[in-house]
Amino acid sequence: MAITVVGSVAFDTIETPAGKRERCLGGAATYFSLSASFFTDVRVIAVVGEDFGKRQESVFQARNIDTRGIEHTAGKSFFWEGSYLENLNEAKTHITDLNVFATFNPKIPDAYRDSEFLFLANIDPVLQRRVREAMPRAKLVAGGAMDYWIKDHRAALLEVLKGLDILLINDTEARMLAGNSNLVQAAHAVMALGPKALVVKHGEYGATLFHGGLTFRAPALPLEEVVDPTGAGDSFAGGFFGYLASQPKQTPAAFRSAMFYGSVMGSFACERFGTERMQKLTRQEIDERFNLFRELTHLA
Amino acid sequence: MAITVVGSVAFDTIETPAGKRERCLGGAATYFSLSASFFTDVRVIAVVGEDFGKRQESVFQARNIDTRGIEHTAGKSFFWEGSYLENLNEAKTHITDLNVFATFNPKIPDAYRDSEFLFLANIDPVLQRRVREAMPRAKLVAGGAMDYWIKDHRAALLEVLKGLDILLINDTEARMLAGNSNLVQAAHAVMALGPKALVVKHGEYGATLFHGGLTFRAPALPLEEVVDPTGAGDSFAGGFFGYLASQPKQTPAAFRSAMFYGSVMGSFACERFGTERMQKLTRQEIDERFNLFRELTHLA
Repeated sequence: MAITVVGSVAFDTIETPAGKRERCLGGAATYFSLSASFFTDVRVIAVVGEDFGKRQESVFQARNIDTRGIEHTAGKSFFWEGSYLENLNEAKTHITDLNVFATFNPKIPDAYRDSEFLFLANIDPVLQRRVREAMPRAKLVAGGAMDYWIKDHRAALLEVLKGLDILLINDTEARMLAGNSNLVQAAHAVMALGPKALVVKHGEYGATLFHGGLTFRAPALPLEEVVDPTGAGDSFAGGFFGYLASQPKQTPAAFRSAMFYGSVMGSFACERFGTERMQKLTRQEIDERFNLFRELTHLA
Repeated sequence: MAITVVGSVAFDTIETPAGKRERCLGGAATYFSLSASFFTDVRVIAVVGEDFGKRQESVFQARNIDTRGIEHTAGKSFFWEGSYLENLNEAKTHITDLNVFATFNPKIPDAYRDSEFLFLANIDPVLQRRVREAMPRAKLVAGGAMDYWIKDHRAALLEVLKGLDILLINDTEARMLAGNSNLVQAAHAVMALGPKALVVKHGEYGATLFHGGLTFRAPALPLEEVVDPTGAGDSFAGGFFGYLASQPKQTPAAFRSAMFYGSVMGSFACERFGTERMQKLTRQEIDERFNLFRELTHLA
């Protein structure tokens, strides 16, 4: 079943111990879409400037992603520059130029309106809510929240959480949102705000799913080299939600496998700069790594 | 098969957000022994002072632990006081009184000399090495190292590592020992120093085993309340090594289960102050929690 995703499409300049890349194609919606496209049909809602051309468009088209919801407007696309020189787990932001993203007002193509799966990536909660309300046929809605929105836009964020089936956040965000440093207590507090399921991402240590009575831990792959962690979380979300959307029913077993596929896609994202690895990935490689994750965690 | 363990038996005064306890029975050898005793016969080598009496002795005896190697001497036992008020993952040490431990010279009872399994807990690497050499019949030798020894007693520690089959350390120690922040690269560097297998403990995120071609991740149980993390690592080691020693062969499958049992015992240790939980534990509870860990990590 098709997923509609709303979020940022951006250019990123990234420096890591492995090197530096100028103006890679990036943004949460980009990573999410590419990742989810290995599992199901994906439709993007975003805004880009005049610097987003055929070359960038072709990255989406090569994965059969519907880009009719990408609005082209005068000006420049969202630009981010950051580095991971001291800590591969946390980016240091040098520049954030919102550009055309500053006045983003998501426009939903009619062809997207039958999407039963909706992913609200990291954008202003006011916009997340507007998109959610404009997509009443979405039967499973997932989303992310970033520390910025948790700290400074809490009221709007709480409104979004009420309408969310699945929230994907990291440890720091979960603890910040709940005001509680114990992961289990924080998870319960966050779910009391609305989401029926919560995925807490632990970076190199994997992720934990809380969903009703089910608690499930997916590992991350111990990687010999993390070239660029940018987009790992959004790629996780794409694999997780893409797999769920591809299943006839979202059973507990489907959620378990979805956690593994999320971790698998997050691990690939780190292997090259930007979306390079995602662009060259094959479904066979994904399934092989899924099996590797099973080997990594299952008793004989 | 019987395990001989050498390490500290101590009194700990511990403060955590859950409260404070004065002079609990503690020490690495204590936690290790209690934990391993659920899987196999355990023999302890340690030194205690006049403050270690029948009440403390009975904690070991209740678990059928051989205490003939606990030397009683004039003076006071090792005393540690610490708190976890700001960070449950890392103790803040207030007092370390080595007392009789300062001149510890391990004496090995003849009855221990046929032990095929030897665990060298956190003590001066010079003593670890002496015990290892005095136990030539030990066919599987595991041990731990603490940041203190890595920083200030590196040469002696490197000698110990050469004779070790399995090293159990935490993330920080692995990275410090290898001088490398990437976990996989650090693991390979540490194993190049001697140990055939390496267990890196990640606290609340579980642990990773590196053993030849096998990489295996065991989760930690998400706990609603961590009452006291003291001894969790040593309890992990006891469950891990105790289970291995109980098996006819130390196959990869046995190592996988050992990782789970390690995590299981570590999770119990955190539930009460000091060794309280370990003292009241039953084998049935251990097996139930083992199954819970399977549920927590295995695809349907």
